[in-house]
Amino acid sequence: MDLNETEISNKTVFEGRLIDLNIETVSLPNGKTAIREVVKHPDASGAIAINEDKKMLLVKQWREPIKQVTLEIPAGLIDPTDASPLEAMKRELNEEGGYKADYWEKITEFYSSPGFCDEKMYLFYCDTLTKLEDKRPLDEDEFLTQEWYSLDELKQLLAQGKIVDSKTVMAITVWENMLLTGQQNND
Amino acid sequence: MDLNETEISNKTVFEGRLIDLNIETVSLPNGKTAIREVVKHPDASGAIAINEDKKMLLVKQWREPIKQVTLEIPAGLIDPTDASPLEAMKRELNEEGGYKADYWEKITEFYSSPGFCDEKMYLFYCDTLTKLEDKRPLDEDEFLTQEWYSLDELKQLLAQGKIVDSKTVMAITVWENMLLTGQQNND
Repeated sequence: MDLNETEISNKTVFEGRLIDLNIETVSLPNGKTAIREVVKHPDASGAIAINEDKKMLLVKQWREPIKQVTLEIPAGLIDPTDASPLEAMKRELNEEGGYKADYWEKITEFYSSPGFCDEKMYLFYCDTLTKLEDKRPLDEDEFLTQEWYSLDELKQLLAQGKIVDSKTVMAITVWENMLLTGQQNND
Repeated sequence: MDLNETEISNKTVFEGRLIDLNIETVSLPNGKTAIREVVKHPDASGAIAINEDKKMLLVKQWREPIKQVTLEIPAGLIDPTDASPLEAMKRELNEEGGYKADYWEKITEFYSSPGFCDEKMYLFYCDTLTKLEDKRPLDEDEFLTQEWYSLDELKQLLAQGKIVDSKTVMAITVWENMLLTGQQNND
């Protein structure tokens, strides 16, 4: 069965600071047409960052769309000046955490919500962290604090509904999986 | 440190079939103001659906925002007529899969992309599936096919970059953890 849709027309109805919004008319597999609302969003990188006490770095920040403070893995948009998703993540770990990591591993990449948005996210694992003497500043409108949690604490926070960010839920599950299967870096 | 932002004003700049877009002006913790672009999206349910051969149900469908066919767990928007996220998922498993399940378990709930969108997703696990004689029809503009994969096949697809949907990556990792820790239903 041919599942492909074909774009007939595409109109940008909003161009913002972070996102754009396109309205596309597509031709369906049965020849009929449909409207697709498509949010254009920059790609992003996130990291499972583990310290020598086997605790994961989370950052606490306000998220206006859900009007609450969240606990999330360090992450950020990939800037045009970043050479790669990994370099973007190294910059974010510096800005949001004040750390550099000596061991890096790419875990996976995925689209956050492919039903309506093109945002792609790259997930890394890193450890062997060093606190930086002179960290890079946060963005002007960015305010956050840091916390460190063991896997047991993270699982408790998850069960209590205190971790509600998709990539962070995924990161905890991936890390648990790495520990269960003995895949973690032991350098 | 007080991380809260306070809404000063809120303007709806787009109202669509699926999403709305609001531009909010907020007061930051340091008293300055900033603009937040917020996508309003209905909540959704998704399910890890496992058959008696220990294979997971995935649906193949075109995703216009990323212009490709994806492999995803069955999922769908929660309609105002759905009594709960679980009831919505039972309806979707019927519509997208043509199945009903006798065993259900809530796994977790999370926001897909809390940085710019309010979409909340409920993830369930189900097994003990029965094929339905008269399934509910798909939405008019929905076209999809079904596939079943073992955990080993899913891990291979992941490694090959053939599974790119966030909730599906999470679902596979969750299922692997359930199998590793012996948490799976064995009724």
